[in-house]
Amino acid sequence: MKTHFDALARTAANHVPLSPISFLDRAADVHRDTTAVVTGQTRRSWSEVRDRVRCVAGGLVVAGISDGDTVTVLAPNIPELFELHFAVPMTGGVLSTVNTRLEAETIAYIIDHSDSRLVIVSSDLRPVLEKALSLLDSPPPVIEIVAPNSKSAQSCEAGGKVYSDLLAAAPIEGNYLPADEWQAITLNYTSGTSGRPKGVVYHHRGAYLMALGTVAAWQPAGRPVYLSVVPMFHCNGWGHPWMLAILGGKMVFPASNAPEHLFAAIAAEGVTHFGAAPVILQMLAESDAAPSAPFDPPLQAMTAGAPPPPAVLERMAALGMDVMHVYGLTETYGHISQCLPQDSWAALPPAEQAEHRACQGVALPMVEELAVINRAAGRPTPRDGETQGEVAIRANTVMKGYYKDPAATAEAMKDGYFWSGDAAVVHPNGYMQIRDRLKDVIISGGENVSSVEVEALLYRHPDIRTAAVVARPDPKWGESPCAFVELREGAIADEAAILAFCREHLAGFKTPKSVIFREIPKTSTGKIQKFQLRKLVKELD
Amino acid sequence: MKTHFDALARTAANHVPLSPISFLDRAADVHRDTTAVVTGQTRRSWSEVRDRVRCVAGGLVVAGISDGDTVTVLAPNIPELFELHFAVPMTGGVLSTVNTRLEAETIAYIIDHSDSRLVIVSSDLRPVLEKALSLLDSPPPVIEIVAPNSKSAQSCEAGGKVYSDLLAAAPIEGNYLPADEWQAITLNYTSGTSGRPKGVVYHHRGAYLMALGTVAAWQPAGRPVYLSVVPMFHCNGWGHPWMLAILGGKMVFPASNAPEHLFAAIAAEGVTHFGAAPVILQMLAESDAAPSAPFDPPLQAMTAGAPPPPAVLERMAALGMDVMHVYGLTETYGHISQCLPQDSWAALPPAEQAEHRACQGVALPMVEELAVINRAAGRPTPRDGETQGEVAIRANTVMKGYYKDPAATAEAMKDGYFWSGDAAVVHPNGYMQIRDRLKDVIISGGENVSSVEVEALLYRHPDIRTAAVVARPDPKWGESPCAFVELREGAIADEAAILAFCREHLAGFKTPKSVIFREIPKTSTGKIQKFQLRKLVKELD
Repeated sequence: MKTHFDALARTAANHVPLSPISFLDRAADVHRDTTAVVTGQTRRSWSEVRDRVRCVAGGLVVAGISDGDTVTVLAPNIPELFELHFAVPMTGGVLSTVNTRLEAETIAYIIDHSDSRLVIVSSDLRPVLEKALSLLDSPPPVIEIVAPNSKSAQSCEAGGKVYSDLLAAAPIEGNYLPADEWQAITLNYTSGTSGRPKGVVYHHRGAYLMALGTVAAWQPAGRPVYLSVVPMFHCNGWGHPWMLAILGGKMVFPASNAPEHLFAAIAAEGVTHFGAAPVILQMLAESDAAPSAPFDPPLQAMTAGAPPPPAVLERMAALGMDVMHVYGLTETYGHISQCLPQDSWAALPPAEQAEHRACQGVALPMVEELAVINRAAGRPTPRDGETQGEVAIRANTVMKGYYKDPAATAEAMKDGYFWSGDAAVVHPNGYMQIRDRLKDVIISGGENVSSVEVEALLYRHPDIRTAAVVARPDPKWGESPCAFVELREGAIADEAAILAFCREHLAGFKTPKSVIFREIPKTSTGKIQKFQLRKLVKELD
Repeated sequence: MKTHFDALARTAANHVPLSPISFLDRAADVHRDTTAVVTGQTRRSWSEVRDRVRCVAGGLVVAGISDGDTVTVLAPNIPELFELHFAVPMTGGVLSTVNTRLEAETIAYIIDHSDSRLVIVSSDLRPVLEKALSLLDSPPPVIEIVAPNSKSAQSCEAGGKVYSDLLAAAPIEGNYLPADEWQAITLNYTSGTSGRPKGVVYHHRGAYLMALGTVAAWQPAGRPVYLSVVPMFHCNGWGHPWMLAILGGKMVFPASNAPEHLFAAIAAEGVTHFGAAPVILQMLAESDAAPSAPFDPPLQAMTAGAPPPPAVLERMAALGMDVMHVYGLTETYGHISQCLPQDSWAALPPAEQAEHRACQGVALPMVEELAVINRAAGRPTPRDGETQGEVAIRANTVMKGYYKDPAATAEAMKDGYFWSGDAAVVHPNGYMQIRDRLKDVIISGGENVSSVEVEALLYRHPDIRTAAVVARPDPKWGESPCAFVELREGAIADEAAILAFCREHLAGFKTPKSVIFREIPKTSTGKIQKFQLRKLVKELD
């Protein structure tokens, strides 16, 4: 039934498409002279960054980029990549950031599959890009971001297009918001551990809500000083570049991700916040470059990608780093759950606190529903901390879908949820905890064994640096847990010692039956490649 | 041109209508046992509040409320009104909160004009409501929120419907989000200083963004403890009830708005935040009940409704209260600009800081554009701090429109902006400052005189408690400023002294030609009624 309320229509005054582009324009106005980016000796204010972005966008338009055109960027975290997070969407184009650690073949696949119209590459990655382009029949044009002091000023000499050509263009004009907030904004390819990488499409609405929701969840005070560690080619840096524009924060680009460079940048610029994978936290925790006194006020770190071992969280706390553990997937723009600390935890002993903090927790404010569901039974699992189900998500920060893959899109978003493929339990306090990728669960004698749970215990052993547990075919139990271990330098623990340690803390069916000492294979992004370990296990038997 | 990106459709997994209802469900999950409301001896957690809200919504459905039905509430700030901010929208109904200080005739007009299907009233306001209903041909049914210990338990005895009947209903079932986020959520009638009150319609999308944008602008730490001062019948309490659900904050209901009750509640519950009109800040600043030491950490206050005199801001700072001055209108869900403090201000002398803080500032994060426009010329005014224009706004937090008033709706939202009717200047730093309601500007010898500017000076005079300046017809200059003044107790300043004080600080054409000592007429909400003063002025001549 139509009511008088329904008669009131959307107008240009009261309905604006949600887009993170809006945050940049506001930042240039509100935070105008405040520093937006710092790299080496270069500092630029928010109004300078906005002016540059408008020119880059103008240059992209001249280069032929418009609505729905993919622009590929192959670059580490540098200010230009930050600028392109605004400039490409301003043209209506779609920013496709590519993992810089990929091999040429996969880069070629992504450029081709994404229908890329233009590739922007940093000097250091030009060689691998050239190799990738040589594999394509009709490679797109290339623009190089020439590194200062780099030798590859050849590009300019050779008449190749460079980023500064874009900057020299007239600024983009007119209303550059998308006509529809559902329009695509970025394209992020998954790491493709199980087949070809899939192209995850984000939209303007989701990117806007991701940034604003992250502010409400992380609650930075004033203008955060943010250390750029998490690569912008992962879920667009978890939406943090857009978030900084809301708050007028400063993005500090360290010389590298080596602990000494990170600690130096923290001290030099007064860093207050950063996001990083657990492996980086571990490096920081173990570095000799760590300052002797804990940070005060504590440094705020967001971590995701794998459940950080409780031992690492404990060491971070001692360093004066508050770790907010979050969980998410490429398909969800990054984090959609956070381990929000509860007041009651403060009174617990550090080890227990760390256990709570290792949970993936509760939904972020912009997430509608975070459920753990027994798919066979079609209902949520009980909150018993034991029964596993699959993590399912409903949110405006769930991807539009997979690019040119309607079958995978439909499969991923069945029955009103996005299905994560992650197995989890829900604790009595409502906090969700990931047990495993569904395919990593070990089924021993009919019991589910979480490889993550066994790994967390192994990380508590003082001699172990890295641990990974996979299923090993077992004549009696079907499968049994098999532990791969990298020891710390000088450590002497042997298989018997480690198995004894496990038996002391774990139920019998969870205790590994064997321990293998060797280097553990990892992806270019530092994720452990369990499929490689499973292959190794099969070779053993 | 359709692209592969456009082929990816909205599904239940990746597109959820934006509604503040979602924040309550999340709060019940995430902040479950944390206190949500405190009133007298009663404390309720977020999960209790959610359970109550679901029952109240269930009761409303039983009472026949559904999509597009107006539910009128006439009540001061009490927990039930807080609950109704979620319960009514859950039914698809539209919450119409009515100013409790209005006279019966206007209440009757609002109930009638809004097509109200049900009135919910607190015991103390039952008499004025009965008078209002007696003026209507077919008054809607009434449900009473019976005050604890009130004498009006008659309602129950007389078989009348009471709020606890709603609570006794079965909780609402199914998906209670609106089908479309553009659906109406609340209806707020303007104070109607220039004619009949107009019904301002808010929608779910705007209410959601208002709440989330306010978090990003105010940046509360942790779970704020919020003192309920600003009436929820004003712009739904500036969206703060919905904002608290995001953060799991606590809403503290003081015994009254008397300074001693406010200070007592602040101390008892550890209040960290509140919103209040400048008149309340002034009462706090001047109260004997103020604690002797300044609040540490400072109390965070948001104020709006009139530019707070710099003198009041100075006194608040001394008390340990950080005042965030915001600006907005009923038509913009409350605040759309904020006087965001700049780092450079900290080094300035207190008086200069206070002048900066008296500006209305810059757009909030969820506001697309805040412009000051010369309507005749059709362009923004220069940033010179002198040239006046009209404040114009584009935002998702601009109302749907005026209920049943298409002409006024179209007039207010012409040319892609909502036109505020407020005259302002923009300072060189980009900060907007309201000079006046357009109709309050005094034109003296062809020069615009801002009554607000003259009033701000008068407030700096130690003998003046309240000041208001209006145009007085002037045979020579067309108009001249005329000052109305209330003196403090025991003060002795006379007209000559005040005029001398003005001449010392103001340009000649801005200096009032006359000072009138008398009680200044105010609306039920404490706003000075300039139209009454203008009438008085005409009687003088």
